[in-house]
Amino acid sequence: MKPFNLLCVLFLLLKGTAFSQSNVLVLQTDFGLKDGAVSAMKGVAVGVSPQLKIYDLTHEIPPFNIWEAAYRLQQTAAYWPKGTVFVSVIDPGVGSERKSVVLQTKSGHYFVTPDNGTLTLVAESMGIEAMREIDETRNRLPGSSASYTFHGRDVYAYTGARLAAGVIPFDSVGTRLPDSVVRISYQEAVFKNNTVYGNIPILDVQYGNVWTNISEKTLQPLGLKFGDRLSVKIFKGGILMFTGTLPFAATFASVPEGALLAYQNSLMNLSFAINYGNLAETYNLASGPEWTVEVTKAP
Amino acid sequence: MKPFNLLCVLFLLLKGTAFSQSNVLVLQTDFGLKDGAVSAMKGVAVGVSPQLKIYDLTHEIPPFNIWEAAYRLQQTAAYWPKGTVFVSVIDPGVGSERKSVVLQTKSGHYFVTPDNGTLTLVAESMGIEAMREIDETRNRLPGSSASYTFHGRDVYAYTGARLAAGVIPFDSVGTRLPDSVVRISYQEAVFKNNTVYGNIPILDVQYGNVWTNISEKTLQPLGLKFGDRLSVKIFKGGILMFTGTLPFAATFASVPEGALLAYQNSLMNLSFAINYGNLAETYNLASGPEWTVEVTKAP
Amino acid sequence: MKPFNLLCVLFLLLKGTAFSQSNVLVLQTDFGLKDGAVSAMKGVAVGVSPQLKIYDLTHEIPPFNIWEAAYRLQQTAAYWPKGTVFVSVIDPGVGSERKSVVLQTKSGHYFVTPDNGTLTLVAESMGIEAMREIDETRNRLPGSSASYTFHGRDVYAYTGARLAAGVIPFDSVGTRLPDSVVRISYQEAVFKNNTVYGNIPILDVQYGNVWTNISEKTLQPLGLKFGDRLSVKIFKGGILMFTGTLPFAATFASVPEGALLAYQNSLMNLSFAINYGNLAETYNLASGPEWTVEVTKAP
Repeated sequence: MKPFNLLCVLFLLLKGTAFSQSNVLVLQTDFGLKDGAVSAMKGVAVGVSPQLKIYDLTHEIPPFNIWEAAYRLQQTAAYWPKGTVFVSVIDPGVGSERKSVVLQTKSGHYFVTPDNGTLTLVAESMGIEAMREIDETRNRLPGSSASYTFHGRDVYAYTGARLAAGVIPFDSVGTRLPDSVVRISYQEAVFKNNTVYGNIPILDVQYGNVWTNISEKTLQPLGLKFGDRLSVKIFKGGILMFTGTLPFAATFASVPEGALLAYQNSLMNLSFAINYGNLAETYNLASGPEWTVEVTKAP
Repeated sequence: MKPFNLLCVLFLLLKGTAFSQSNVLVLQTDFGLKDGAVSAMKGVAVGVSPQLKIYDLTHEIPPFNIWEAAYRLQQTAAYWPKGTVFVSVIDPGVGSERKSVVLQTKSGHYFVTPDNGTLTLVAESMGIEAMREIDETRNRLPGSSASYTFHGRDVYAYTGARLAAGVIPFDSVGTRLPDSVVRISYQEAVFKNNTVYGNIPILDVQYGNVWTNISEKTLQPLGLKFGDRLSVKIFKGGILMFTGTLPFAATFASVPEGALLAYQNSLMNLSFAINYGNLAETYNLASGPEWTVEVTKAP
Repeated sequence: MKPFNLLCVLFLLLKGTAFSQSNVLVLQTDFGLKDGAVSAMKGVAVGVSPQLKIYDLTHEIPPFNIWEAAYRLQQTAAYWPKGTVFVSVIDPGVGSERKSVVLQTKSGHYFVTPDNGTLTLVAESMGIEAMREIDETRNRLPGSSASYTFHGRDVYAYTGARLAAGVIPFDSVGTRLPDSVVRISYQEAVFKNNTVYGNIPILDVQYGNVWTNISEKTLQPLGLKFGDRLSVKIFKGGILMFTGTLPFAATFASVPEGALLAYQNSLMNLSFAINYGNLAETYNLASGPEWTVEVTKAP
């Protein structure tokens, strides 16, 4: 064998499948970090390939809260490079009829998850390139077939790791499905009669800030400048929970400590906060499909 | 030097000790993640070798709870590849007579820990290949000898990192010890007079599910089929805390929301839960050696 | 091209910038791990270079607590190898006049952070080699310029990742600043009239132990031996909160369960604890610049 050929072989040996796949695996669950569940998932993934770079999105999704799982994927996925494989296991219906799937988005990201609503927002924002159902006869940790309850480890982590490491191509996940996902319905942000309507998909929990789904674009017809004042109403199931007039601020530092403000969060969505305070706690506000918002420009 | 020889040298340079050791280091402590203790341990390990892949098992073991530390190792270690080095630091007796050891199991895993009961369960299930006492004159972070209290960083993380990275072979840990570990006694699962006896080693804390140590094999003489009903009694120190008749279900989805069920957890051990609920909280159940269970097939 | 030359090229291709930079990135924030903020930071860093080794210091700094951020850096940085890049984002003044900087210490570590007091302690202990202000026209995630509020992701994580991966040298961060940092003032440890004065910079939160800033060297004039007894007074804003006589112990195991002790923590600073107990909770003690300590040798 000539040295050059040897070099090529050596090169391929060393780099392995790094050319075809990202080797980046990101995990999200509602398991918390107090027990060994997440660690077992990582062990299975490392067993597939020690070259994987394994990261956590969060494991503190409130138990069974599929909506929040969907939101966290949407909040972060676009910041990860193309080829990143996300495994999301919030699975109250384990053992029921929900399908285990892998979504490939038009942006080139992969999502391994039960198709139970978790994909609602990334399917919308990143586009569906293809959906495949995980064929568990081929894509399941060897020796795990008798276990009925830990799909997160035996199917999702295992399949996500094999995809990320390039052990299997996307085609080998299983049968192709129609280009649609199970969807959680929610009120989209709209502008109508000089009012912007939206909902509160999530709180910025650490600080108690209230985030809406009202994007810069939806807000545009209001013609806001920093310093303008906004009339804000927040409802839960139609019942008024908060009303106030807030300055539209470029930064928290634009208002005094303890003052309310409206601002654009890191996703460029309209949000509300108390500078150095906790708005959600102060006014008993929360998030979810039942929480809606009305915003107008104050005179 | 011939190109081929050069290639071999290059290959070894690049791969380093990856052939001999796993480079995989898994950490468990009761330190929590609010301060810098775990980070300092990781810094020491990265200082030993930046090639290490460092993962967390959990750092939320309740302070000083050696039993739970033992359980978490047992729950997860088998899912990590052969050669993985675990460092477990739950060490209420730091400075006392407990030995600092490394256990090599027959399965090819390594456990670096104070020998204070932490090894009880992995020694049983994975088998003792060899035990060595850590010789701190050789295996201690240089410059740390004046510190009396942070063995986790200066001895355990340092030694675990050097083992995982192949800087030292297992032989260099220190003197070989007899093949036995300090053991926490607990009630093993047995079948007798048509009844299965066992204990509750741990709760599935995130969901409040109750896990027993009763394996599929111990359960076998009951001849259960999914849908059969089980008579379950749970005792704390001999006092009856819970009694009920539960269906033996393949999945949570087999029973209505809010209903009790018996099932096999991801370790294939008999467990009890409320579908979409928290059994432990509802009935004030906890775990540990003093918690025992009796199960019969209901007529 | 000769095989040897090819080898050199190959070698450089494979090792990339690993020679010039550490590839080690350590993150600290007050964001918590319940939402996607930290994950988005990591995604941006992985997008800069998948070769990075990304670790967490902690994300549980109490919101806006710059003092604790400073302390955690000081507690851990020296245990990480030279070349490690720390990104610390505790930034109550985001959008205000605080500068975004990178500190290079004499020890060869890098700190990417708002210059708001966070650097107080590492600047003292590790020495200032050079300070540069981050030039956001060059060092900001492409496409993020419209976002006003997530500097942690778009500026700090991005710049830290590029430094750690060797994509930019330190010189390219931005203009050099004077060799000084914004400083939080606190009472330094001193020995005077047979008494040691100091403060409580931090609690060992997981166990409720009380840590002082009194080093071995400051303590030396007391001429302590293990077993000696210390008179300890703890004040909050000058008001006496605790007084007691504690044995100076080499290890927790030297005193009975439930007994008070004085000991040297893993930083070799004088600390107080209850063996198997929680001193801070028991006596309502906390930490910060307003907490001071007086220690004498008991007769």
